Amino acid sequence: MNLPQGFLLSGIHCGIKRRKPDLGLIYLKDFSQAVGFFTSNANPSYSVTVSKNNINNPIKAVLVNSGNANCFSHNKGLKDSEEIITRLAKQLKVNKKNILFASTGVIGKTLPKNKIIKSLGHLLNNLGSDVYSFASSIMTTDTAKKISLREVGPVKILGFAKGAGMICPNMATMLGFVLTDAKLERSFLKQCAKEAVEESFNSISIDGCTSTNDTVFILSSAKVALKKNQLNAFKKGLKEVCLELAKLIVKDGEGATKFIELKIKGAKTSQEAKQAGLALANSVLFKCAIYGEDANCGRIISALGQAGIKVGEDIYIKATSLKKREIVITVDLKRGKASWDFYTSDLTPQYVNLNAKYS
Amino acid sequence: MNLPQGFLLSGIHCGIKRRKPDLGLIYLKDFSQAVGFFTSNANPSYSVTVSKNNINNPIKAVLVNSGNANCFSHNKGLKDSEEIITRLAKQLKVNKKNILFASTGVIGKTLPKNKIIKSLGHLLNNLGSDVYSFASSIMTTDTAKKISLREVGPVKILGFAKGAGMICPNMATMLGFVLTDAKLERSFLKQCAKEAVEESFNSISIDGCTSTNDTVFILSSAKVALKKNQLNAFKKGLKEVCLELAKLIVKDGEGATKFIELKIKGAKTSQEAKQAGLALANSVLFKCAIYGEDANCGRIISALGQAGIKVGEDIYIKATSLKKREIVITVDLKRGKASWDFYTSDLTPQYVNLNAKYS
Repeated sequence: MNLPQGFLLSGIHCGIKRRKPDLGLIYLKDFSQAVGFFTSNANPSYSVTVSKNNINNPIKAVLVNSGNANCFSHNKGLKDSEEIITRLAKQLKVNKKNILFASTGVIGKTLPKNKIIKSLGHLLNNLGSDVYSFASSIMTTDTAKKISLREVGPVKILGFAKGAGMICPNMATMLGFVLTDAKLERSFLKQCAKEAVEESFNSISIDGCTSTNDTVFILSSAKVALKKNQLNAFKKGLKEVCLELAKLIVKDGEGATKFIELKIKGAKTSQEAKQAGLALANSVLFKCAIYGEDANCGRIISALGQAGIKVGEDIYIKATSLKKREIVITVDLKRGKASWDFYTSDLTPQYVNLNAKYS
Repeated sequence: MNLPQGFLLSGIHCGIKRRKPDLGLIYLKDFSQAVGFFTSNANPSYSVTVSKNNINNPIKAVLVNSGNANCFSHNKGLKDSEEIITRLAKQLKVNKKNILFASTGVIGKTLPKNKIIKSLGHLLNNLGSDVYSFASSIMTTDTAKKISLREVGPVKILGFAKGAGMICPNMATMLGFVLTDAKLERSFLKQCAKEAVEESFNSISIDGCTSTNDTVFILSSAKVALKKNQLNAFKKGLKEVCLELAKLIVKDGEGATKFIELKIKGAKTSQEAKQAGLALANSVLFKCAIYGEDANCGRIISALGQAGIKVGEDIYIKATSLKKREIVITVDLKRGKASWDFYTSDLTPQYVNLNAKYS
C-alpha cells in the first residue's frame, strides 16, 4: 500500500504492553496542516491536553501509544507527557509545539515515560511505508487492524482507527488518524473534516460511554494539488474513509453479534434525527432486543420519548431480517424532512462478561 | 396491616393477564388530596395523560391495571381510557375528573377495555383492607410485593410500588402509591412529597431507560390531625416510606446480583451530586465492573467526566467489599460541600438474556 506523499510511519514494541506493538509514529517529511477532534469528557487524558494545545501549529509528527491511557495518574502525567514530546521534538529538530500525542489503554496508571523515551531512536529508525506496523501499534483489544484507503484523482486519503467501543475494561478509547497529501485551503480541509467526523465517528455508539482519550486527527502534507472540480470528490472520499473506519469500530465491538444501521428519517432537523439515532443506540433495552432478534417497537417508542422526541401513532418502523448479522432499521418519525444515519451494535451477555473482570 | 383511615383497597383478576391479578383500586371514603409525579418521557401512556389532567381535583379513586401499558395503541387509547374512568366514576357517583389512572405492561397493545369495564363491579365489591391483593394486582415481573409502612403519632403512611427497572421486555414501568390519613396543608404535603420523591424514586436507576408510564401518587384522606411538632416527623416518615419502596425496586432488578448505594459527597451543589450518582448508575461499564467485583476507579473517573464533572487527582473513592450483595461506594468529588445518595444495581448477563427474548 503506497502512503500519501510526504508521510512515513513506524510502529514498534517499547514495553508498555508485554509483547505486542505499543508505540506508533506518523512522521511528516515537511510540516503538515492538522485538524483535531477531541473527547468531550471533562476528565481528558494528558495526551489530549497536549494535543489540544498544539493542534493549530504546523505538525511534524504524531506520537501514539497503546496499553496506557496516560490519564489520571497523579499529577505528574502532564509533565511527563511534555517531557516525552520535548525529547521527540529534539530528535526531529523541531519545537515540542509541532508534535501531537494520542494514547489509549488503562486509566489511572503512570505512563512508563522512560521506556518510551529510550525507544524513540528505535521508533525513528523504523520509519517507512509499512502501514500494518503502525496499525498494530495503536490496537488494544481490537481483533483486527482498521485501515481505509481512497484515491481521488492524484490524491490519496489513508485512514487508521482503533477502538472496539469501550469494550475492554478501561481501554475505553476510539482513536482515528487520516492522512492525505491533498493540498487544500485550511478552511476547506477543516469544513470537510468536520462534516466527515460528524457523520462517522460522531455517529456511532457501542455502549454510550465517552472515553477520556477519544481523538481524531486529519493530517494533510499538502503535496498534491487538486483541480477545483475534484474538491467535491475529495470531500466525498474523506467521508468514505471516516465512515468505513467508524463502521469497522462498531463491527469489532467486543461481544457484539449484530451490526445495526439506524436510518432515521422524517425528523424536524438533522440534529434531531441524529439525537433519535443516539437515543436508540444508547438504549440498553433496545440493544438487548436486537441481540434476542426480537422485533420490539415499544422499546423504540420509549427510547425516543426518553430523548424528548414525541412521535405519533403514524410513525413508520421497518427492519431488515433480525436474524442476519447486519441489520438496517428505518425509522420515519413523520415530524419533518431531515434524516441521519447512525451505527451501533447489540448488547450481549458476552459484552457484560468481558467487561466484568479486569484484574 | 391496618390501612390509613379513609381508604379501602381492592385487587382482582380481570383477564388482561392469563391468571394473575391485574386490576387494582384505591378508594377514598371521602375525597382526597393528591400529589402526582409523572414520567418525563415525551411519549407518555394514555393513563398518564388522563391522570395529569385530573391530579389537581379532589380524588375519589385510583384505578391501576398491570399487563398492558395502555400506551401507543393506535389512536383509540385515550378515548378508551376516558370511557373506562367515566364508567368507574358513574358507579362511584362522582365525576370522571375525580379518578386517577395508572397502567404498566406491554407498550403498543390495545387495552382490553371491555374486560376492565365488565370487572368494575367485582372490583368494587372486593373493596376492603387487604393490602396484599392490591399489591399483587400492580405487579408485572416483580418477584415480590413492595410495601412500606410508617406510623407518625396517630398518622399512618402506607406505600406500594411496582417495578424492577424496565427489566422485562416492554414492562418498563415504575409505579408508586403512598396513602396517608394525615390532615395537612396542601402546600406542605406537596413540598414533603416533592422532596421525598426526589430523594427516592428519582434517585434510582437500573438501566437508564425512562418508561412511558412512570407514575407516583401521594394521596391524603385528611382524616387525622397532626400537632405542629409532629410535622417534621411526618416529612421524615414519608421520605422513609418512599426510600424503602425505591430500594425494594432496585433490589428486585431482574438479573441484578448487587445492590449499590452511591454516596456522593463534596459536590458543588446537591444537583451536581445527584448528577454524578446518575452518571455512575447509568454507566454500563461501571455496572459491569461491579458485577465482576472488580475495583475499577478509571471507570468512575470516565463516567464523571462524561457527565461534565471535572475532578482532580485528589478525588476520594472508597467501597465496602465488592463480594457482598449490598455495596456502599463513597465518592468525594472534592469540589464543594453538597452530597446526594443514589441507588443502582449491577449489569449482568442474566439481565441481557432476560431482555433479549420477549416473543
